[in-house]
Amino acid sequence: MAAVSHTEATNLTTPSSNNNNNGIDTNTTTTFSISPVTLQKLPHLKDYIPQQALKTQPNPLEHNPLYHPSQGFYISHSDVVLRHIVFDLSESFPSSASSIAYHRAGPRDRVFFDPSQTRAAIVTCGGLCPGLNTVIRELVVALWDLYGVRQIFGVKAGYRGFYSSEPVELNPNLVHSWHNEGGTVLETSRGGFDLQKIVDGIQDRHFNQVYIIGGDGTMRGAVNIFDEIRRRKLNVSITCIPKTVDNDVGIIDRSFGFQTAVEMAQQAISAAHVEAESAVNGIGLVKLMGRSTGHIALHATLSSRDVDCCLIPEMEFYLEGKGGLFEFLEQRLRENRHAVLVVAEGAGQGMIPRTDAQKEERDESGNPVFLDVGGWLKSELKKWWARNHQNELLTVKYIDPTYMIRAVPANATDRLYCTLLAHSAIHGVMAGYTGFVSGPINGIYAYIPLEEVAQSKNEVNTKDHKWAWVRSVTNQPDFMKV
Amino acid sequence: MAAVSHTEATNLTTPSSNNNNNGIDTNTTTTFSISPVTLQKLPHLKDYIPQQALKTQPNPLEHNPLYHPSQGFYISHSDVVLRHIVFDLSESFPSSASSIAYHRAGPRDRVFFDPSQTRAAIVTCGGLCPGLNTVIRELVVALWDLYGVRQIFGVKAGYRGFYSSEPVELNPNLVHSWHNEGGTVLETSRGGFDLQKIVDGIQDRHFNQVYIIGGDGTMRGAVNIFDEIRRRKLNVSITCIPKTVDNDVGIIDRSFGFQTAVEMAQQAISAAHVEAESAVNGIGLVKLMGRSTGHIALHATLSSRDVDCCLIPEMEFYLEGKGGLFEFLEQRLRENRHAVLVVAEGAGQGMIPRTDAQKEERDESGNPVFLDVGGWLKSELKKWWARNHQNELLTVKYIDPTYMIRAVPANATDRLYCTLLAHSAIHGVMAGYTGFVSGPINGIYAYIPLEEVAQSKNEVNTKDHKWAWVRSVTNQPDFMKV
Amino acid sequence: MAAVSHTEATNLTTPSSNNNNNGIDTNTTTTFSISPVTLQKLPHLKDYIPQQALKTQPNPLEHNPLYHPSQGFYISHSDVVLRHIVFDLSESFPSSASSIAYHRAGPRDRVFFDPSQTRAAIVTCGGLCPGLNTVIRELVVALWDLYGVRQIFGVKAGYRGFYSSEPVELNPNLVHSWHNEGGTVLETSRGGFDLQKIVDGIQDRHFNQVYIIGGDGTMRGAVNIFDEIRRRKLNVSITCIPKTVDNDVGIIDRSFGFQTAVEMAQQAISAAHVEAESAVNGIGLVKLMGRSTGHIALHATLSSRDVDCCLIPEMEFYLEGKGGLFEFLEQRLRENRHAVLVVAEGAGQGMIPRTDAQKEERDESGNPVFLDVGGWLKSELKKWWARNHQNELLTVKYIDPTYMIRAVPANATDRLYCTLLAHSAIHGVMAGYTGFVSGPINGIYAYIPLEEVAQSKNEVNTKDHKWAWVRSVTNQPDFMKV
Amino acid sequence: MAAVSHTEATNLTTPSSNNNNNGIDTNTTTTFSISPVTLQKLPHLKDYIPQQALKTQPNPLEHNPLYHPSQGFYISHSDVVLRHIVFDLSESFPSSASSIAYHRAGPRDRVFFDPSQTRAAIVTCGGLCPGLNTVIRELVVALWDLYGVRQIFGVKAGYRGFYSSEPVELNPNLVHSWHNEGGTVLETSRGGFDLQKIVDGIQDRHFNQVYIIGGDGTMRGAVNIFDEIRRRKLNVSITCIPKTVDNDVGIIDRSFGFQTAVEMAQQAISAAHVEAESAVNGIGLVKLMGRSTGHIALHATLSSRDVDCCLIPEMEFYLEGKGGLFEFLEQRLRENRHAVLVVAEGAGQGMIPRTDAQKEERDESGNPVFLDVGGWLKSELKKWWARNHQNELLTVKYIDPTYMIRAVPANATDRLYCTLLAHSAIHGVMAGYTGFVSGPINGIYAYIPLEEVAQSKNEVNTKDHKWAWVRSVTNQPDFMKV
Repeated sequence: MAAVSHTEATNLTTPSSNNNNNGIDTNTTTTFSISPVTLQKLPHLKDYIPQQALKTQPNPLEHNPLYHPSQGFYISHSDVVLRHIVFDLSESFPSSASSIAYHRAGPRDRVFFDPSQTRAAIVTCGGLCPGLNTVIRELVVALWDLYGVRQIFGVKAGYRGFYSSEPVELNPNLVHSWHNEGGTVLETSRGGFDLQKIVDGIQDRHFNQVYIIGGDGTMRGAVNIFDEIRRRKLNVSITCIPKTVDNDVGIIDRSFGFQTAVEMAQQAISAAHVEAESAVNGIGLVKLMGRSTGHIALHATLSSRDVDCCLIPEMEFYLEGKGGLFEFLEQRLRENRHAVLVVAEGAGQGMIPRTDAQKEERDESGNPVFLDVGGWLKSELKKWWARNHQNELLTVKYIDPTYMIRAVPANATDRLYCTLLAHSAIHGVMAGYTGFVSGPINGIYAYIPLEEVAQSKNEVNTKDHKWAWVRSVTNQPDFMKV
Repeated sequence: MAAVSHTEATNLTTPSSNNNNNGIDTNTTTTFSISPVTLQKLPHLKDYIPQQALKTQPNPLEHNPLYHPSQGFYISHSDVVLRHIVFDLSESFPSSASSIAYHRAGPRDRVFFDPSQTRAAIVTCGGLCPGLNTVIRELVVALWDLYGVRQIFGVKAGYRGFYSSEPVELNPNLVHSWHNEGGTVLETSRGGFDLQKIVDGIQDRHFNQVYIIGGDGTMRGAVNIFDEIRRRKLNVSITCIPKTVDNDVGIIDRSFGFQTAVEMAQQAISAAHVEAESAVNGIGLVKLMGRSTGHIALHATLSSRDVDCCLIPEMEFYLEGKGGLFEFLEQRLRENRHAVLVVAEGAGQGMIPRTDAQKEERDESGNPVFLDVGGWLKSELKKWWARNHQNELLTVKYIDPTYMIRAVPANATDRLYCTLLAHSAIHGVMAGYTGFVSGPINGIYAYIPLEEVAQSKNEVNTKDHKWAWVRSVTNQPDFMKV
Repeated sequence: MAAVSHTEATNLTTPSSNNNNNGIDTNTTTTFSISPVTLQKLPHLKDYIPQQALKTQPNPLEHNPLYHPSQGFYISHSDVVLRHIVFDLSESFPSSASSIAYHRAGPRDRVFFDPSQTRAAIVTCGGLCPGLNTVIRELVVALWDLYGVRQIFGVKAGYRGFYSSEPVELNPNLVHSWHNEGGTVLETSRGGFDLQKIVDGIQDRHFNQVYIIGGDGTMRGAVNIFDEIRRRKLNVSITCIPKTVDNDVGIIDRSFGFQTAVEMAQQAISAAHVEAESAVNGIGLVKLMGRSTGHIALHATLSSRDVDCCLIPEMEFYLEGKGGLFEFLEQRLRENRHAVLVVAEGAGQGMIPRTDAQKEERDESGNPVFLDVGGWLKSELKKWWARNHQNELLTVKYIDPTYMIRAVPANATDRLYCTLLAHSAIHGVMAGYTGFVSGPINGIYAYIPLEEVAQSKNEVNTKDHKWAWVRSVTNQPDFMKV
Repeated sequence: MAAVSHTEATNLTTPSSNNNNNGIDTNTTTTFSISPVTLQKLPHLKDYIPQQALKTQPNPLEHNPLYHPSQGFYISHSDVVLRHIVFDLSESFPSSASSIAYHRAGPRDRVFFDPSQTRAAIVTCGGLCPGLNTVIRELVVALWDLYGVRQIFGVKAGYRGFYSSEPVELNPNLVHSWHNEGGTVLETSRGGFDLQKIVDGIQDRHFNQVYIIGGDGTMRGAVNIFDEIRRRKLNVSITCIPKTVDNDVGIIDRSFGFQTAVEMAQQAISAAHVEAESAVNGIGLVKLMGRSTGHIALHATLSSRDVDCCLIPEMEFYLEGKGGLFEFLEQRLRENRHAVLVVAEGAGQGMIPRTDAQKEERDESGNPVFLDVGGWLKSELKKWWARNHQNELLTVKYIDPTYMIRAVPANATDRLYCTLLAHSAIHGVMAGYTGFVSGPINGIYAYIPLEEVAQSKNEVNTKDHKWAWVRSVTNQPDFMKV
């Protein structure tokens, strides 16, 4: 609970309604406390490996010829960062008033790996995402330059690479310019997850550090790998760097490549806007990535300022009738002669008629396949118009820029982010942590248990303030039938 | 103090050194508390204007035809966000363990202005910064669309515009595409601050909302304007949106336009890299903005991955001798045949010889003028080389991309940021707050007293962990004579 | 015939085969002549309007305050440019040895319009193309600034705008930044061609200069308008600026927007390349504009250097069997693990199976509708792979960047081109020419009869040297069954 | 002379002034002839090497597995292209009516080199230029893929590399992505020209094909190398690919990288425009490359449409007095509150005061050093303003984007151009031509004697129509005192 005290006699729990300030007087000093803050446990090799088998040594950064770790350089296990930092002081016993803390990321003064004995493996799984090559490059360069690791391997083409192909030896010269390229030089693929074969592969090749870069499916697999490694009591540290251009992973502030994707989406929206403006009753329609979450669509909409309506998976919408999409578009076309629509690929899936075959079809993960919401919307728009405006022109231009968005190299913001992600992952692994994810929490890099991240989901919360606020920015209908 | 409790008998203040975990056992649940958290006071019109003179009304958003404020849409005065969120649990009585909280930004359920009586003034002061036009556009559009304000004025060319020229009437149609342009359509200038004339101008034109977009000098002026408005007991709310491409303003997470500047700086660094690589012993030298802080130089360096050394104002460096810049460059040229150097404009000012005239010269704010550190470095590099490598080629290419960086429109990240800044400022002003700055604190938009922000300074702290960490990323010397 | 003379006794028609020089000795001076060169007739108002009704006056440029037309400024009717400039001297009586000449474009010393009586109409028809707004802007600015015309009108949304909506008055202030926007601010549409209504509209609104910007269908319409104007003996000059992003119009060197389109296509190809490289047996497939000609696909392929095979409408190809596409891709995948395919939208239309409905379907011009060759190819590729490589992965990523290519503003090269096109069109119209097209022939701006251009077609000639050469650059199969 | 015949009795030499058509009646068919056309001689190895020592063989393209040289694929020595293609038919005995022809570039059916014995050297000299790496890449790839050459070497860092360092062996894998990088991976330098050492180096390393990429100084050196090779009767073919971002080389249509430079210059002009517009009396000043010619400045000005005045080396201008720059700027500032100025680096050199030291200083070629015309102009502008407008603000922002322009990779247009340049150079060299330059003449690739190109100069002709026309486009003063 958040115990709230007041240095002067203002009673928070008895708000005086006449000043609309919910009881917090602006002329007195208000204080409160946050308690309890629970520190999340972080797996470590020593959790299951006997201390005598784990030899530690001073961090090799100590011997760097160029710089001298100053005071404050090393982060210790007692450095933590808060996750919940927003409170409503008017609620006397808010369940959310407590908070959670995570261990901060960063170099430790002692490491649990001997660089000369370290064999690191890096693998990329799933779809492309801007910044993949930057993460790989930085893992290689930092392992090499900071920690003196000389055996660094790229596992080819996703999980199956652990057992079906030879790993590629990597070094700073080889990866030197990779960050300037989109995609992943290591190649990637979906599927191919075979737990025993993978862990056997890790053992057979004597990898003792495993860096996995992948999305939610990949992370769930990584949890299994971690469990199996722990079961076999292997002296192998494993970490995962979440890769999801959709930004749908929870706990961490955002996923890498997301800002680049939003930036690139502007091009498509801008083209849609131009097409719409140059036509008579022109509608520009852009489908953006986002299977279960609408973050890219939403951010791109807010960044562009040229979008009239944004449809996302988290939000219900309807086409016909009062407050529906058609009514809204009708009005926009009348006012502006054009309109721009952005739709996340996962939006409206329940509304698109499916053939019996499509009803049966399942993707690799067993979920119903996604139908093309953009094509469906385009067709519905044309039907609607034909019904109601026989002699008027309508032009619908539909753009699907997916591959042009996700195949670009990271922009500066994401490149810096990828760099810090890679470095903090290495510092954690070298310190003996395992089964964790490194990422920023409220701007501070922290180590989070992998399992916790794998189970999390970052959805647009259409019930909370931020969504409502955003909706006010876009000035679009809320599709609440009234 | 941060009171730390433990559910099991782990004693935080007696760290057991053998596990290197500073006393925090990973197998028990650790909890602690943060106390006290002090809520910063936020100025409000009612602080000095009698209640009966302040008529409130429901937020006009209530009557929006398109959406219906859902539960949770309005933010109340009791919604707060924490500033200090990082703690070292090993310090039993850490002075930093307490924290500060600010009021969250966002729409309030009641407003203190009648939209039909509202006259808003917007002014831009100081140098250019990506996003300026986006902020202006969003202020106009949101005042008009969300709150129904119809009297919105642009004050031309900085502070002097309040008394020396006619304001320009603004509306959504006029500003519709401004966000696609760099610079500020309202024009800007330095100086021209005349307190009485400005406040007279505000009164004469019956402005009751004043939105000032400017840097630290501008903000100090705004504090004076706020004080004078309060002294005159005017029913005028004033807010400031910090504009500093250098990112040198404190408390808020970052300033708008900064990410765009870092992005654009990549172009210059990339050109310097190409020039250096294509020459024999080529050195590419890029001067970036940053008079007293090196954020752009530092972020651009970390994003680029092609920079060998980055020099910033917060850091001492020296050219000659062991551990000096020349020794370092000598080594890099030997290894790679080229090197890239980034220098913030305020770096090394103490090292550049000044003529007597230059010693006397002062800029508009009374500070010693800045000398061109890039030109000086280029010349010193050539002298050094001539002394030591008579028969070897050296090529130094010096790039100053300043105006090409600051004159571009904002990228998507900054555009979204500018939009939210403008909206949160308006919500605060409409709610009767005054003398405040709106900005994100740990990712959450909050209202901060203007005076506090005007006195703050965001420098690169070369003593803390982050800087050390960054230094390890760049692998450059630390210029600590040993 | 090209009469060839020799200053020394080398006999061109008796080539001495031993020096492989086709009879042209490198040690003697060879000369020849070109005859006849036929000068193409250029329609002029005075062709059908009595001289007394046509008052001429000195070019208003004479009175420009800023510059003084120097000698050589004005182009006269006797200035001509050659069209056929390539000759094979080994052919004694080559039919192609003669040549054709056109009148050069440029300002004339006397004009046939009184600027104060001039009413100019500008219209854009058909699909978008980079540079449209630049052409419009330059027409307005040059008419206004150079010739002092003050009545300039934009006809909205294509041909139908002549009779169905009010024209928009244009001036330099209004169009000032239009060149920075993609699309056409005047809006455009297909169809709406009603000859009598259009010419009535021209008469009713007292337009005496008509600038039509459109593609081949538009140009055929413009020929009819020109004929009708001539039939009605109207003192109205009409010109057409060919707009075809496909670059399929003949005689002129290239159409505006084409270079920009090729530039933008690189993005799509680059994305396809990244997707292909990052997958196992990845094929990147890009569909580019080009209904009957493959210029964009071809130029984009040659510019990119990352394309393995380019399929265009002018070229037959086949999938199966020796020398077919599948065999070629099989080989490339084996060698490089990936391949990139570019296909023009009009390629392979004869190979795609059509439903009965599709066989009947006709577009607005009465041609069979185009089927999506990209989608078909993707599907055929997957079927082929499934037949022959059951247990191997294949990834095909298909990108259609059409709208993202054609909706951008013109790049610098095209912008300059659009500017010169607009200026030369105006100079011609002011000089009383009509029914013409202005455009570069071998780099020199000339006036060409509109009818000649409307009937021309610029196809990739797969029989000539250039195509063969290009094929050698791409190193792709020639699909000639052997 | 251009003999002009008329099918009807129109007398060209007696123009009838009443129709303003210079005697060319539009209702008759006009024909004429061009004579003489002189074919330029092209040096060939057999000019000085005995026939028996030169073994020829069929072009290896005959055996390409992928395509079959079709009829018309090979170009023969009798294929020529015209240089002068513009004629004024009103001049009865025009000296310019004759024309010159060059041999067309392209593959020949027989080659003079045995690929297995071919050793090719590639070198880059002088400053950077967009497209350098594309040219290198294409030379390597085409020699390898088309002609089967396997010994290809890069000479490092300019002419001095022939004798001072080991050449680097090149192959398609190595150069695969070079075209995506700016600069030159082979490195470049100025000077280092030592004729005997260079030719000795060519002999010692058994190079028999030499590809030199460089500017006018480099080409003059290459002429000497060619002469020395011929003097030594070496079986070595040499060609030069002109590299001059300034576009100041004559005869060929344009130099590679030029379009990219003009494109990039838009960024700087755009930034200058934004800075100027955002200030009170803002002047944006951009210095662009162009030591003796103003092509980049001129093209960038024409492309941008935002430039008020463009100053180039070929044009006199003056600051003070009637018709001067200051008067013009005064007027623009009054009208628009801002102005943009573009100046080529070589403009106004005679006007900038020089210290005695500067008068003596010479660059490597013995010419007076260039002073910074941009800095001088900025200073003169401020002095002028201070003299005449004491109490008004003036802001001058000066941008020098040189290195950011020349260090970028080529755009699509230039990349295609570089590719065709490289391929046509190889075809010529393989065919035994030597001492030549390959480049487009009126759009057709041709072989031109190296000496002729080395002596040529492409200046902006301020006396001719095009300049006058361009001046009318920019609407700037002509600085002709009146």
